[in-house]
Amino acid sequence: MKNTASTLADLQCSICGTRFDAAELNRTCPSCGRVLFARYDLERAARTLSLASLAGRVSSLWRYEEVLPLQRAENRADLGEGFTPLLHLPRLGGRAGLRRLYVKEEGRNPTGTFKARGLALAVSRAKELGVTEVALPTAGNAGAAAAAYAARAGLRCHVAMPADAPPAVMDEVRAYGADLQLVDGLIHDAGRLIAEGCRDNGWFDLATLKEPYRAEGKKTLGYELWEQFGGSLPELLLYPTGGGTGLVGMWKAFAELEEMGLCDGRRPRLVAVQASGCAPVVRAFEAGAARAEPWEDAHTLAPGIRVPRPFADDLILQSLYASGGDAVAVEDEEIRAAIAEMIAGEGIDAAPEGAATWAALKKMVDAGKVGADERIVLFNCGTGLKHPELRPS
Amino acid sequence: MKNTASTLADLQCSICGTRFDAAELNRTCPSCGRVLFARYDLERAARTLSLASLAGRVSSLWRYEEVLPLQRAENRADLGEGFTPLLHLPRLGGRAGLRRLYVKEEGRNPTGTFKARGLALAVSRAKELGVTEVALPTAGNAGAAAAAYAARAGLRCHVAMPADAPPAVMDEVRAYGADLQLVDGLIHDAGRLIAEGCRDNGWFDLATLKEPYRAEGKKTLGYELWEQFGGSLPELLLYPTGGGTGLVGMWKAFAELEEMGLCDGRRPRLVAVQASGCAPVVRAFEAGAARAEPWEDAHTLAPGIRVPRPFADDLILQSLYASGGDAVAVEDEEIRAAIAEMIAGEGIDAAPEGAATWAALKKMVDAGKVGADERIVLFNCGTGLKHPELRPS
Repeated sequence: MKNTASTLADLQCSICGTRFDAAELNRTCPSCGRVLFARYDLERAARTLSLASLAGRVSSLWRYEEVLPLQRAENRADLGEGFTPLLHLPRLGGRAGLRRLYVKEEGRNPTGTFKARGLALAVSRAKELGVTEVALPTAGNAGAAAAAYAARAGLRCHVAMPADAPPAVMDEVRAYGADLQLVDGLIHDAGRLIAEGCRDNGWFDLATLKEPYRAEGKKTLGYELWEQFGGSLPELLLYPTGGGTGLVGMWKAFAELEEMGLCDGRRPRLVAVQASGCAPVVRAFEAGAARAEPWEDAHTLAPGIRVPRPFADDLILQSLYASGGDAVAVEDEEIRAAIAEMIAGEGIDAAPEGAATWAALKKMVDAGKVGADERIVLFNCGTGLKHPELRPS
Repeated sequence: MKNTASTLADLQCSICGTRFDAAELNRTCPSCGRVLFARYDLERAARTLSLASLAGRVSSLWRYEEVLPLQRAENRADLGEGFTPLLHLPRLGGRAGLRRLYVKEEGRNPTGTFKARGLALAVSRAKELGVTEVALPTAGNAGAAAAAYAARAGLRCHVAMPADAPPAVMDEVRAYGADLQLVDGLIHDAGRLIAEGCRDNGWFDLATLKEPYRAEGKKTLGYELWEQFGGSLPELLLYPTGGGTGLVGMWKAFAELEEMGLCDGRRPRLVAVQASGCAPVVRAFEAGAARAEPWEDAHTLAPGIRVPRPFADDLILQSLYASGGDAVAVEDEEIRAAIAEMIAGEGIDAAPEGAATWAALKKMVDAGKVGADERIVLFNCGTGLKHPELRPS
């Protein structure tokens, strides 16, 4: 018996449109193999979800209960994730001639990164549907988040990551009690190992966008922007893009908000930010392509965006094109400089992937692509506490 | 011209009772040298502060605007501090036969520790009163918080800490642009150095309880508990006690809440948790003393509670006695075990000082000092991300 306000209706393939029963455990589309989305009865959701009704709710992403999949509250693996601060950056913005620059401080999530959003939802919903062992490949931080939520939910967790991932995140994963395997290679090599483990042992695979609910956690970024800007959306979003769940999730959130009549049709331009040493989405965007080719010899100091083959490349590119957005690559040295400017200039302790968005914004300003009065949001996806090796000296 | 709802009235010495003008920059009592408290027009504050009126406010400690000292909103050095999650711990509690065990997740503050609360207020108010350079002695984390808020506020910051403090926190302080001095010795030795610097250079000293406003930030812990428990206070609080600002601040918050008619006279029993290698408050409590003697040869793996001579020992002990509370010392090995139990058992990544509260609670349960139905709150004062060296192996 449901005891939440969830209006979850069914699952639908984002590409071929086929629908599936949401009460069953699904990963990708059984028909075409692409990403499955959760769908809601938004007419019903709109009866209780509004700026006013949100005012007294819990200070976490669980406040958007109507448009989240959990059917029973006790299945929530809740560590207080989401509803992170949106901070105005007058000093940093002033240097670039921007009056309305903001940062979404995602390092304030459990485990110190925005990976918490997706994994909180995916682990909780997997538990609700009867899963007892979860698994995922990761560049590092998603593994820590999966391990944390599995510990909170009482599930077993298996993680695989590149052997050259930061040692601190390996220790973090193990401390939560997860089983960790290291692979010689990158995240897609870890993905193969996890896929085998799932096939042989019945684990449930939580890899990026290969199950429907991590995107549901990430989409709450879009709801929070809408709420924190008082019921409207900003003009420009810069998002560090590895697997791209956040872009895909926010784009879905904006569509839901419009369908519920909670905001007008003006959506932000989305900008995918990547490192010049691993920029498959930027290359595809510049070519006007519908899919991205795998990036060879990927390298960058920002592990979270070292993703040579994002599974949802098609959905990422769709959201960039449809929003009139952009895709920008930045050098490692520009990321280092951006870390130093954010922490000393405004007290923002950014992860390298988050700092990359500030580096990219400066390039866009130089190229005349940004209006001085636009509301601009940088996504600082993690805390600098996880990157002591990148402290400015 | 004031543009906040602050009802700040004056400053009053916590010991001799003398009153001072709050518009002037003060540190300790000019008459007797003890701790100064900020006082408010609580009758006026009570007209607008209530559970209902709080519902739509910002999701940070600034929501308690009436009982905070800031007169102008633009003086807030705001990184989104406070209003941290209060999480139920059914699994951990169950092992100890406790149904209503909670953790206050203070590691989710800016800079990863509850030091953010006090320093956000102290730096903001110092700026409001015309200060341009701040300084403080620290075991480590308060220095990081001071540096972060100084960077946010555009003030210069001078920090002194023991040379054997964690290297990562030294790099963190420097990254925020602060000037860092290392001393051979402990926090009170750093305190002497800072006091000299303040005397010679006109810096403003933010040392624990040696100015009135850090306690105002820390007291918001008490307001948050009251709000998160729906307008009542829990029965038992376990608090890792170094300088003790939180105990002193919460006790003040409870008095203010009562005076405003927002809760009845039932206050929690306060338990000061210290390490057996540095337990001046525990020793004084067991002797029934009004003041604590300095602890010789202080040592513990938990740097935040390695404070041999807390300045506000008298106020700390008063709050323990008045609440019918307790004081408990735990061994370093018990802290290590508690870290492992919290992270694997519930997904709570605790700092050693925070884990010490769980170690202490188990001792109190064994001694029959805790009721199975009491609402108990552990203060996890920081994130385990700042202590990779203490990861369970």
